[in-house]
Amino acid sequence: MDRTIEVCFTPKLFADITTKGDYIVVLADILRATTSICAAFQNGVKEIIPVAGLEQARELKEKGYLVASEQDGKKLDWADFGNSAFNFTREAIAGKTLVYCTTNGTKAIDIAKQADKIVMGAFVNISALTEWLVRQNKNILILCSGWKNKFCLEDSLFAGALSEKLLAHPGFTTCCDSVHASMALWDTARPDLFGYLEKAAHRHRLKKLDLDDVIPYSFEPDTTRVIPVFEEGVIRNAG
Amino acid sequence: MDRTIEVCFTPKLFADITTKGDYIVVLADILRATTSICAAFQNGVKEIIPVAGLEQARELKEKGYLVASEQDGKKLDWADFGNSAFNFTREAIAGKTLVYCTTNGTKAIDIAKQADKIVMGAFVNISALTEWLVRQNKNILILCSGWKNKFCLEDSLFAGALSEKLLAHPGFTTCCDSVHASMALWDTARPDLFGYLEKAAHRHRLKKLDLDDVIPYSFEPDTTRVIPVFEEGVIRNAG
Repeated sequence: MDRTIEVCFTPKLFADITTKGDYIVVLADILRATTSICAAFQNGVKEIIPVAGLEQARELKEKGYLVASEQDGKKLDWADFGNSAFNFTREAIAGKTLVYCTTNGTKAIDIAKQADKIVMGAFVNISALTEWLVRQNKNILILCSGWKNKFCLEDSLFAGALSEKLLAHPGFTTCCDSVHASMALWDTARPDLFGYLEKAAHRHRLKKLDLDDVIPYSFEPDTTRVIPVFEEGVIRNAG
Repeated sequence: MDRTIEVCFTPKLFADITTKGDYIVVLADILRATTSICAAFQNGVKEIIPVAGLEQARELKEKGYLVASEQDGKKLDWADFGNSAFNFTREAIAGKTLVYCTTNGTKAIDIAKQADKIVMGAFVNISALTEWLVRQNKNILILCSGWKNKFCLEDSLFAGALSEKLLAHPGFTTCCDSVHASMALWDTARPDLFGYLEKAAHRHRLKKLDLDDVIPYSFEPDTTRVIPVFEEGVIRNAG
């Protein structure tokens, strides 16, 4: 039986997905949550507790946890870190538990909790992730975090790149229009990815906030083999 | 002041649009409502009353109106017509008022009522529509009807084709990721449009219902100059 692939362009469309049976959600928040989570595991974080609300993040900070938290792309002053991959150095996080709260990413985790598993996808772990997904023998839903419920280019580009890699394996199939559209988008952008990204609205948002230093890192494929999997409230490395 | 273009991939995302000020909604339901509405005006229908609910359509049928109504692509037995452009022959509709109820199209009209104007867009009127939009001097939101809240290829392809035509005029600008994505999709599909459409999930749905005879007509550009505009509950030809 072929395994299906579906792409959901924003969490707001999650209620209408058609994927059935056992499935894995690949969460994509390329700028920046899922990329940063991969970076944190690459640098030895023990586990990450994602929270959707600022209040909960602040409570855990008061209990002594290390907390990464941002709103609209900006670090909150009471938090230990913002949401940039570059914050999560080995010195700062190796062996530790990190509480993580973001505008889009952790809310998407919250929405996708009904899935069998949720795994963090990014360009930085795309090949290791593909191999891991091939071994899982489940249907796949790629959930783009988007930006405030809206479609965004960077997550959709990743959805196209990952769909293409998965469909190159026998045993995967799709009848999802969003998969085809994201692959067309990836195909258009690939020859000059950074030139194409100049068009992305979110890139300009990040530029405005002086946070666009993570862009080259976020689109560099395969700098890590970590597989951050969310299960029972915690993200751990299954790679 | 440049006019903005935004694409909304499904009515479910309409609440989160960023277009501000006076704007025109271009509604796209290529298979088949907006294409069929253009065909009806090309064949001389006087006006079209769109209704979102089957009950209301049936009441108007009992009052003596001609009614086109379908559910999931199939004509309802009590209706005069289904939703195919080929139903609306000159003999059947010239000079008459038509009540029109569809799964996706009229619901999208209902959602977009807050706009200054709603105009029906399709490949069959794309050039006349572009010229008309250029003359209106308003921001533009292209609203894809989608399929049961989901992204669909055929409406998004049209959004890309129309965005490209509008952006070729000075005075239009966009910072909408969905505009860029739909133009990439259109660029990919254009060299072999019908080959590409084989991928569209909805095409297979129509095939199953034996309704795919309208496909070549629906993607043939510029077979009409009608501009069906919805205002105050009624669609009339502004072309």
